[in-house]
Amino acid sequence: MKAQRQIDVKNFESRKGFIYDFQKLIRDVAIPYQYAVLNDQVEGVEKSHAVANFENAAKAVKGEDVGEGFYGMVFQDSDAAKWIEAAAYSLAVFPDSKLEEEVDGLIDKIAAAQDGDGYLNTYYTIKDREKRWTNLLEGHELYCSGHMMEAAVAYYETTGKDQLLKVMQRNASHIYQKFVTEGKEGYPGHPEVELALLKLYRATGDKKCLDLAKHFIDVRGVDQDYYKKEVAGRDWKVWGNDASDNDYQQSGKPVRQQTDATGHSVRGVYLYTGMADLASETEDEELLAACRRLFESIADRRMYVTGGIGSTGIGEAFTVDYNLPNDTAYAETCASIGLMFFASRMLEAEVDSRYGDVMERAFYNTVLAGMELDGKRFFYVNPLEVIPGISGVAVTHKHDLPQRPGWYACACCPPNVARCLTSIGKYAYGENETTAFIHLFAEGKVSFANGLTLNCETKYPYGFQVCYQVLEGSGQVAVRRPDWSADHFQICVNGKVQEKEEKRGYWYLDGIKKGDEIQVTLDDQIKKVYASPAVASDSGCMALQRGPLVYCVEGVDNEEDVLSLSYAEEGEVTAGEFEPGLLNGTVKLKAAGYRTVHKGSLYTYEKPEQLPCTITAIPYYTWGNRGLGQMRVWLPKR
Amino acid sequence: MKAQRQIDVKNFESRKGFIYDFQKLIRDVAIPYQYAVLNDQVEGVEKSHAVANFENAAKAVKGEDVGEGFYGMVFQDSDAAKWIEAAAYSLAVFPDSKLEEEVDGLIDKIAAAQDGDGYLNTYYTIKDREKRWTNLLEGHELYCSGHMMEAAVAYYETTGKDQLLKVMQRNASHIYQKFVTEGKEGYPGHPEVELALLKLYRATGDKKCLDLAKHFIDVRGVDQDYYKKEVAGRDWKVWGNDASDNDYQQSGKPVRQQTDATGHSVRGVYLYTGMADLASETEDEELLAACRRLFESIADRRMYVTGGIGSTGIGEAFTVDYNLPNDTAYAETCASIGLMFFASRMLEAEVDSRYGDVMERAFYNTVLAGMELDGKRFFYVNPLEVIPGISGVAVTHKHDLPQRPGWYACACCPPNVARCLTSIGKYAYGENETTAFIHLFAEGKVSFANGLTLNCETKYPYGFQVCYQVLEGSGQVAVRRPDWSADHFQICVNGKVQEKEEKRGYWYLDGIKKGDEIQVTLDDQIKKVYASPAVASDSGCMALQRGPLVYCVEGVDNEEDVLSLSYAEEGEVTAGEFEPGLLNGTVKLKAAGYRTVHKGSLYTYEKPEQLPCTITAIPYYTWGNRGLGQMRVWLPKR
Repeated sequence: MKAQRQIDVKNFESRKGFIYDFQKLIRDVAIPYQYAVLNDQVEGVEKSHAVANFENAAKAVKGEDVGEGFYGMVFQDSDAAKWIEAAAYSLAVFPDSKLEEEVDGLIDKIAAAQDGDGYLNTYYTIKDREKRWTNLLEGHELYCSGHMMEAAVAYYETTGKDQLLKVMQRNASHIYQKFVTEGKEGYPGHPEVELALLKLYRATGDKKCLDLAKHFIDVRGVDQDYYKKEVAGRDWKVWGNDASDNDYQQSGKPVRQQTDATGHSVRGVYLYTGMADLASETEDEELLAACRRLFESIADRRMYVTGGIGSTGIGEAFTVDYNLPNDTAYAETCASIGLMFFASRMLEAEVDSRYGDVMERAFYNTVLAGMELDGKRFFYVNPLEVIPGISGVAVTHKHDLPQRPGWYACACCPPNVARCLTSIGKYAYGENETTAFIHLFAEGKVSFANGLTLNCETKYPYGFQVCYQVLEGSGQVAVRRPDWSADHFQICVNGKVQEKEEKRGYWYLDGIKKGDEIQVTLDDQIKKVYASPAVASDSGCMALQRGPLVYCVEGVDNEEDVLSLSYAEEGEVTAGEFEPGLLNGTVKLKAAGYRTVHKGSLYTYEKPEQLPCTITAIPYYTWGNRGLGQMRVWLPKR
Repeated sequence: MKAQRQIDVKNFESRKGFIYDFQKLIRDVAIPYQYAVLNDQVEGVEKSHAVANFENAAKAVKGEDVGEGFYGMVFQDSDAAKWIEAAAYSLAVFPDSKLEEEVDGLIDKIAAAQDGDGYLNTYYTIKDREKRWTNLLEGHELYCSGHMMEAAVAYYETTGKDQLLKVMQRNASHIYQKFVTEGKEGYPGHPEVELALLKLYRATGDKKCLDLAKHFIDVRGVDQDYYKKEVAGRDWKVWGNDASDNDYQQSGKPVRQQTDATGHSVRGVYLYTGMADLASETEDEELLAACRRLFESIADRRMYVTGGIGSTGIGEAFTVDYNLPNDTAYAETCASIGLMFFASRMLEAEVDSRYGDVMERAFYNTVLAGMELDGKRFFYVNPLEVIPGISGVAVTHKHDLPQRPGWYACACCPPNVARCLTSIGKYAYGENETTAFIHLFAEGKVSFANGLTLNCETKYPYGFQVCYQVLEGSGQVAVRRPDWSADHFQICVNGKVQEKEEKRGYWYLDGIKKGDEIQVTLDDQIKKVYASPAVASDSGCMALQRGPLVYCVEGVDNEEDVLSLSYAEEGEVTAGEFEPGLLNGTVKLKAAGYRTVHKGSLYTYEKPEQLPCTITAIPYYTWGNRGLGQMRVWLPKR
């Protein structure tokens, strides 16, 4: 039994404001651009071939010559799937017949690529059907199926069209047959299918999907030698992943016994998302307790202040508690998206603002930073310190690029950002029979299943007044009080200040009805943020945050030298006016600080002069949009 | 023409004091212990098999069965060589018939393992003679020959015994035949033979040794595809090193064109040492200019404050300018020893205190820290920040062990420390026809070739008076003024204060004669050290140094929590009394500082309380001798 559920994506519609601007960018730029990339129609970027792979797989299914065959990563299919999912969410609120035709056309190609037994994966269908299911460690078959299931559900829910849904039901049946009926051993190297099967279960009511998700979660980590046996039993590999590295694939223990978030961080949070969803779906308290521990492992000890996770590029992975290097961070965009998924599912299990706080932190900082403000270029990796000449250059910093590239051979992040942004309503709003939940502040109209309809107006995250007009219905409304708004948080209903009655970070407003106006006032003060001393990388440092936005300093605003800056510990920090023309519209902060005068030598015994100066900071999500330069989130304080 | 030369190792003899205590430890503990390890007589440590390899190679030479064959690293022979070199230097001043017998016995075994054509390497002789010279990239044949040449020269110079010298002359002839006469292409993957051939040249007068050293230096990096061709032409490998990574093996350009210290840091400084020696030996101004650039690349941009070099464990390598992470440093003990070699050879080319400053920094900090104070345990890697739970544990920190292990499978550092310490007189003192040079302050008796003999008494590095009595002879004496002693440096001759007449950091004292007393007074003030703001890892931080000793803070002296400490920027720092019973005798520093009170959460908006406290610091070279705990060289300042 879920405490509350994500709303239907169709039920949130934004027509202006911060969220809308991003959704519009996705709709107008990212989705068409990514479609062109998937179809190899963009000059000068890494070839995708994802659509051609489906076309060639269809030929293979028909026994025809496969032409130029398969090209790309073993998980190339998932790029198409995530694009469909993003397009579906976009279509939910922005009808677009051309886009819908494109999706339908692509779905036809995908359907044609499905084998007679329900199997669907272009890599194996084109290259070697005998290799099916022989490499769960690296093979990504279940991962690709999972993404295609998510796409199918999204397209069905937003358009009512069920062609892809049926394809993926057959695919799920095929997988069920293989792993449950026939009892094939093993579990996904890259978790994803678990969370997808739960969506498919809810969309179709097919209990086999639920059972299959539960199966994969239950068997994971029970036979810790599974991958070793698998490697011993096959004569091929994708990359040659270490089968004994159970931490990497979160299989060191049965999931219910796991305590620390380990290994590949995207795999981790995708797994935990599935676990959390299953736990509340099946009222599995033991599983939920494991999810709580894993969430705390991340949020309390292994997460950057930007909501980034994954401290190292080696395995794109979590490391150990409090190891959060700023310059060599991995902090993959996809991992923060996955962290939002996980937090959102935890909110379904139990309403507690700590989940919303993490979801908001990840979204407004790392997830948004993943995309250039033009919607065309993306970061995989989101470091908190960038130094041209070191970042992207030193062997330890190769992954930390100082500027966003156009497209990647491994193109997981761009369509992931697209699907996250177009479905943001699901994360922002939730519901149960009695209550409408406001987890994130997102301008637009939201309708709940119980008939309550709100219209939200706000300049958030640059304004701190959030106003809801009740357009229809009645019921209880619960509003999350963000962690950063503890000192100052007020809700007025029809002008009447509400008494504080906070339950695990949410304010519950009873008897809300059509015509009411709910006014939420958030703390607009700039916060100085301090990390635990256990975080060695942030020793003696301070960061700035206003609302949900973590700020950073860039060279372009600070004489091209950020490394010599310190914040004045007791200094004043002021927010500028909203500048519509700057970085798609933003607010700069000005902080009192010091600039250390560099005498040129590597080490000196002479106390360097520290000249008072004014430091200009910008929101982290806007960094890297004005050319190459230094960037830092944390600055020393003095 | 050398500006001055290292003294003969026999001509420095220490009988008490700081240097003597270390030499005694090497003589009493390290040399016998390492001999036992080489002979596989120590329980519970990694098997060496180095001596048995020579025994088995001798069987192979005679066509007999090789028994259990070869065991160990491809460069295992070099461990024996470095041990002989250390033992030779020790014998120079501490006669020890048992040790001399052991060395002679080992040399007999080595001589017996030499092939008829002069080839000497147990790995190839035992395993496969056909593989000789087919893998310069990884094969370490020239490296092992180089170390054995150094051992041969050392043993000849200190005992007059020439058995090993003759073995290595034959070996050098064999190599000359191969690479010069027969014109085999290629150059050493791991430089070392160059610097060794120059020593062999000076010991034997055999000009072929000089020519061969010059050959290897001249051809290096000219054919940048050499290693690629080599890999293509063989069907075996040691580790599979990347043949195209010319930076790693310092072969990206002909050496005279190189500007940045790159790649494997030990390989780098060994190469540069050979280059600097050759440059002054042959008056090669172009080569010397390259050496100056490379020295500056290290000392001005790529060196830790502890004299450690090599910023990453990936390739044990230099990275890029100003990338000096404290926690993931490699800073190999051997690399700092090699940096001393390089600096010492640069001093031979031109007398300038900047070389002595670096030599002293490397020696008193990283080199000494490489050895446990019991002489039995060693660090390869010398990080400037250690956090139990992260160091040695996180995938990015596996190489940064928080405690010294007993012995390594790859045992390069322990015998390297031993040979460095037993020959320290060569680095401390130099000479030319007219002048005796004092580069480092080392208690003991030193005799120069011109007949001048000094006796040095000092409590250095814990005392700042250094007194030289002239026992014999006459001439000019030049004394290095350390960089940290710029504010306060005085020399009295027979009580008369000398006028400052400094030439590139050295004070030249004329007319010194028997009976004179030279009193050098160094700055005893504690220095606050600041790194260039370009070093991101040290932003806002400060370190402490007194004399040549860089200090660090350890958990054991600071409530087991070093991460929450900050130095008070303007605070007082005082030196304690010398404590003979502490860490083999040391002086602690007490610094005013603050302890941040940890509220438990990962990030907080509440300004953490900072309680004034007294921070206790100890010399970096003594760290890690009192159990597991946190350690930091740099602390934030406020």
